[in-house]
Amino acid sequence: MADKIFKIALLGFGNAGQAFAKMLLAKEEKIEKVYDTKILVTAIATGSKGNLVKATGVDLVRALDDVEKYGKFKNEDELVSLSTMEIVEQADYDAIAEMTPLNIFTGQPAISHIEGAFTRGKHAITANKGPIAWKYKELKELARQKGVKFFYETTVMDGTPVFNLVEKTLPLAEVTEVSGILNSTTNFILEEMAAGCDYEDIMERGRQLGFVEADPAMDIEGYDAAAKITALLNVLMDADITPDKVDRKGIEDITMADIEEAAAEGKVIKLLCRGYRDESGCVVAKVAPEKVDKGDLLATVNSTTSIVSITTDMMKTVTVVEHEPEIEQTAFGVFGDLMRILGE
Amino acid sequence: MADKIFKIALLGFGNAGQAFAKMLLAKEEKIEKVYDTKILVTAIATGSKGNLVKATGVDLVRALDDVEKYGKFKNEDELVSLSTMEIVEQADYDAIAEMTPLNIFTGQPAISHIEGAFTRGKHAITANKGPIAWKYKELKELARQKGVKFFYETTVMDGTPVFNLVEKTLPLAEVTEVSGILNSTTNFILEEMAAGCDYEDIMERGRQLGFVEADPAMDIEGYDAAAKITALLNVLMDADITPDKVDRKGIEDITMADIEEAAAEGKVIKLLCRGYRDESGCVVAKVAPEKVDKGDLLATVNSTTSIVSITTDMMKTVTVVEHEPEIEQTAFGVFGDLMRILGE
Repeated sequence: MADKIFKIALLGFGNAGQAFAKMLLAKEEKIEKVYDTKILVTAIATGSKGNLVKATGVDLVRALDDVEKYGKFKNEDELVSLSTMEIVEQADYDAIAEMTPLNIFTGQPAISHIEGAFTRGKHAITANKGPIAWKYKELKELARQKGVKFFYETTVMDGTPVFNLVEKTLPLAEVTEVSGILNSTTNFILEEMAAGCDYEDIMERGRQLGFVEADPAMDIEGYDAAAKITALLNVLMDADITPDKVDRKGIEDITMADIEEAAAEGKVIKLLCRGYRDESGCVVAKVAPEKVDKGDLLATVNSTTSIVSITTDMMKTVTVVEHEPEIEQTAFGVFGDLMRILGE
Repeated sequence: MADKIFKIALLGFGNAGQAFAKMLLAKEEKIEKVYDTKILVTAIATGSKGNLVKATGVDLVRALDDVEKYGKFKNEDELVSLSTMEIVEQADYDAIAEMTPLNIFTGQPAISHIEGAFTRGKHAITANKGPIAWKYKELKELARQKGVKFFYETTVMDGTPVFNLVEKTLPLAEVTEVSGILNSTTNFILEEMAAGCDYEDIMERGRQLGFVEADPAMDIEGYDAAAKITALLNVLMDADITPDKVDRKGIEDITMADIEEAAAEGKVIKLLCRGYRDESGCVVAKVAPEKVDKGDLLATVNSTTSIVSITTDMMKTVTVVEHEPEIEQTAFGVFGDLMRILGE
C-alpha cells in the first residue's frame, strides 16, 4: 500500500481523457511502487457525458465502461449537477488535468480552469496549447505566487519531450532558435498534393482518417501552427507573445504548380514554424510554407509525424521527432507531467 | 558570492577537457546564480601535459593558456608528480570528470578511475563509453552502495539528451527498442561512396577532416558502434551485455557495386545499430550495414550527424538527432551531468 494519496480532477473525457484514464489504471501498481503514491481521480468534468465527483475516488473502470457503452456516465453515486467551473472551484483535488475542447482564439475555457485551480493553491497540467499561447506569463507568475506546479508538455508534439527536454536535460543552455513542422493536417495535404492527388480527394480522405477537421481553416491558414510556435517561444525563449503576433501564412494559396515547381528543383513544400531573436533582441515568430531540399531531414517528415529543432548557445541544434502519434501519446504527455509533480 | 563550493578533478585535458574548462569559465556566474555554488577545479590529470593539483582551485585560465602556448602545464605552484590514479586516490574533490583516452577493448583506464572515485565516496561523470559498455552494472551498483552519482550522458551522441531523455522526460516508460546511426566515420565513408568518390580519396579527406582515425578499423569494423549500442542497451534496457556480445558487422565488405545496387532501388546503405528483446526476453544487439529508403529519416543523416530512436511501451518512438557536433557538444554533455549533480 502506498503511503501517499494524490487526487486529480480530470477536466475533459474525450479520446485523450479516456486514454489518460486507461494509462492511470494500467500503471497503477508501478506508480505506487515508484512514487509511493496512490492516484485518486476525484472528479471528471465533461461537456456532454455528465460530471462525476467523489472524494474517495470515482470508479474509473465504470466511468470508462459507461462512456463506451452509453456515451455518458451512469453512476448515480457519483453524478453531480455541478458545472466544470464549479468542480474546479469546489471539488477536492491536488491537481487538475485540463483536457477540455479549446477555443484557439481565446484559450478559453482552459485558462479559467487553470486560474481557478491556481487560486485554490492546486497544481495544473494542461493538454491545451491555448493557455500557453495566450496567457503563459500570467499563469506562470500566478503558479509561482501560489507555490504550485504548472506543466504542459502535451501542448506541442504530445508526450514527446520538448519543454521538459530543455528544462530537464539542457541545463543553463539558452535557446536561441526554434523551428519545426507542427501541423499534421497541412503536412498531410502537402504530401498528398506532392503525390499528385486531387485537392478535394485529399480533403475527403483526410476527413476519413481524422487528419482534417470539419472546418479545416484553423489548420490550413496556419492558426494551429501559429499557436504552437507561440507556445514554444513563450516557454523556451521567454517571448511573451500571442498567436496574433506571429507572421502567419498558411497553405491556402499553394497550388499544384507551386508543388511541381518545387519538385523540379528537387524540393518539397512544408509549412514551417520558426522563431528567433531579431537584431534588437525581440523574438520573431513565423509560420509559412517553405521549399525544403528533398535530402533534408524536414522533407522526410510526412503524415502526422512532427519535428522540432531547438538551437541553444551551448548544444547547437538538437532535433526531436514524434512518429505518427496516436491518442496514447497525447495521454502520455499529461501522464508524464503528473509523474513530474509526484517526483518533485 | 555562492554559499557552496563543489570541487572537481578533471581527468584528461585534450580537446574535450579544454572545451569543458572553457565552458566552466564562461558559465561561472550563471552557475553561481542558479545553483548557489562555486565550481573549483582542484586537479587536472593528463597523459603528457603534466598534472596539476591545488586544493583551493587551479588557475584554469593559466592552465588553458599554457597548454595552448606550450602544449603543457607550466604553473610550478600547481604541478605535482602524482600519477592520474594517485590523483584519483588522493586529491581533494567531490567528483571526477573522466575524459581520458580510452582502450575500447577494455574500458580502461576509465573504469579504474571511476572505481577509485566511488571507493572514496565521490561522484563520477564520464565521457568514455567504455565503462558503460564493459562494466555498467558493477559501477552502478558500487555508486548505489556508496551513495554517489554516476552520470555519462556524453558517451553516446555527446550532450544530446539520450540517457537523460529517458530518465528525466519519459517517466515510467519502458524502453522496448533502440536503434540509430552512431558512428560518424562509417557514415561519412558511406556517404562519400554514394557520391561516387574513390575509397582512398575518401579516407585521405576523412583523415584531414578528422573523421577518420590513423587506424580506422575500430570504426570501419563496427567496434565503436558496437560499444555505443551496448552502452545504450545496458542503461536503457538493463541489458547487462558487453560489446563482444553484439552481432557486429562493419562496412569493410561494402563495395561500390553494393552502393550502386542500393541506389538503383532508391536506397542508401547506412551502418545501423539496433537493440531489442527476443522472444525469450533477452536483449539482442546488432550492428550491420542496412539498405535504407531514400525518403527515410535515416537516409538524411549524413556527415557527423547522428540519430537515435527510442521506442517505449507508452510513448511509441521518439527520435533525437545531433547535427554535426563540435567539441563543445562533447563538453556540454559533461557540463550538463555536472549541473545535474549540483541540482539533485
